[in-house]
Amino acid sequence: MTEVAAFVPGHVTGFFTIHRDDDPTKTGSRGGGLALSDGVTVTVRPAEETSVRLNDVPIEMDAVETVLSTLQATARVDAETPLPVGSGFGVSGGMALGTALAANQAFDRRLSENELLTIAHGAEVQADTGLGDVVAQARGGVPIRLEPGGPQDNLLDGIPARPRIEYHTLGELSTEDVISGDTDLLTQAGKRSLSRVVKEPTMDSFMRASRQFAREAELLTPEIRDVILDVTEADGQASMAMLGKTVFALGTGLSDAGYDPVVCEIDAAGARLDR
Amino acid sequence: MTEVAAFVPGHVTGFFTIHRDDDPTKTGSRGGGLALSDGVTVTVRPAEETSVRLNDVPIEMDAVETVLSTLQATARVDAETPLPVGSGFGVSGGMALGTALAANQAFDRRLSENELLTIAHGAEVQADTGLGDVVAQARGGVPIRLEPGGPQDNLLDGIPARPRIEYHTLGELSTEDVISGDTDLLTQAGKRSLSRVVKEPTMDSFMRASRQFAREAELLTPEIRDVILDVTEADGQASMAMLGKTVFALGTGLSDAGYDPVVCEIDAAGARLDR
Repeated sequence: MTEVAAFVPGHVTGFFTIHRDDDPTKTGSRGGGLALSDGVTVTVRPAEETSVRLNDVPIEMDAVETVLSTLQATARVDAETPLPVGSGFGVSGGMALGTALAANQAFDRRLSENELLTIAHGAEVQADTGLGDVVAQARGGVPIRLEPGGPQDNLLDGIPARPRIEYHTLGELSTEDVISGDTDLLTQAGKRSLSRVVKEPTMDSFMRASRQFAREAELLTPEIRDVILDVTEADGQASMAMLGKTVFALGTGLSDAGYDPVVCEIDAAGARLDR
Repeated sequence: MTEVAAFVPGHVTGFFTIHRDDDPTKTGSRGGGLALSDGVTVTVRPAEETSVRLNDVPIEMDAVETVLSTLQATARVDAETPLPVGSGFGVSGGMALGTALAANQAFDRRLSENELLTIAHGAEVQADTGLGDVVAQARGGVPIRLEPGGPQDNLLDGIPARPRIEYHTLGELSTEDVISGDTDLLTQAGKRSLSRVVKEPTMDSFMRASRQFAREAELLTPEIRDVILDVTEADGQASMAMLGKTVFALGTGLSDAGYDPVVCEIDAAGARLDR
């Protein structure tokens, strides 16, 4: 038993719905997002007791601990990421999924990709830290989640595109606060945006559907709206990362509007063991 | 409208079944294989009349022409690959899928990834050049095809592993001759190998299941069997690429046995537009 590392892309969600079920692996969301080349690298080492670190800082992370206990693994987990935490990039989902992939290998648990994905998705749902990031992060590309839940229940498609992506983060937002409140308005808005993208699966339509969702679900804060408007006035396309105080844009949208964004790409591969 | 390129990984099949349906998009195979970093790059340019070239040589390729006519696209298609043709690497499937992805973008057809995959899979089935390569090439990794057909019907899983792969090709074998003959024996053997890998989704079990299939389906030629035995005697794992006179091995299996193989990796991403 040795140390094993896995990489999981970041994931910004443009629009989503919420679907609850008694079974956490059937709970989830429909929606659309972007898998990013900026992601989370998770290293798992068998250890005397379980501990979790994020960028060298010890943290409590329920989803990671659930994954480890499901795999009957006691390990030290080290996650490294350039992504801002709590800002809508799926860092918690990435840590859960990366832990599942790496621990399966380190402890020779012999599970399939779907089995590991089911475990990580269920753990993230139980921890109330996300509903759709894990399945999107496993797939990569520009995932469209047509049906909710883990791999035994869901249905995925994708937009065939690999644009350059820019992002700019203004601060944190708690996923748990939003998804555990009244979510009817949000789910209705999510369904409308999803229909729009299913009808026309292009990046242009994705960005418009994302802005429509942010507005209709009443999740836009004034400062985020201002940044999006700045990009629009510079002839760019931007929207809000769900759920974080983050604006993401296609191409050079934020740069053209005078911001100093982080630049990355679409990650086509999805979650994978390091070679 | 401009020139667009797409990359599709090669795919060697270790074991498979055959499932026929009146609808080509429901026809396909179950089985397991490896998506390879050696693949096919397909460039599509709008043109006055359709033409297809493979490594600069004009060829007839029904699957590519079916894809173009479905997309109502008249184009020059140029495919480049380091892979040996007709040797079990899914070059025809790669050309069909790469053409679908690139033509969708070049002609602004606004289809989703699943729609393009359905078109390419159906075209490959109609041309009798393959049954499962296209869906595996779209996914990437080490795809396990649990249910046959295009993305609306099939069910995929994967082995979470990224071994180094070596291959050695002895000559060509016609896919059409094998899959249009009596295939009961083959399908029974394929089901047994698939069960084995579902029970234990590891690379070791995949290689054993592949050798079992080659033997039970009576597809091994004496010269391929000799190469596989050489690898086994050098403590390696090898099997036969379905359908070609090709031996593939994990790690340094063929090198250790004294061969001079081509070396590549698992392609985790699957088919994608070039950036």
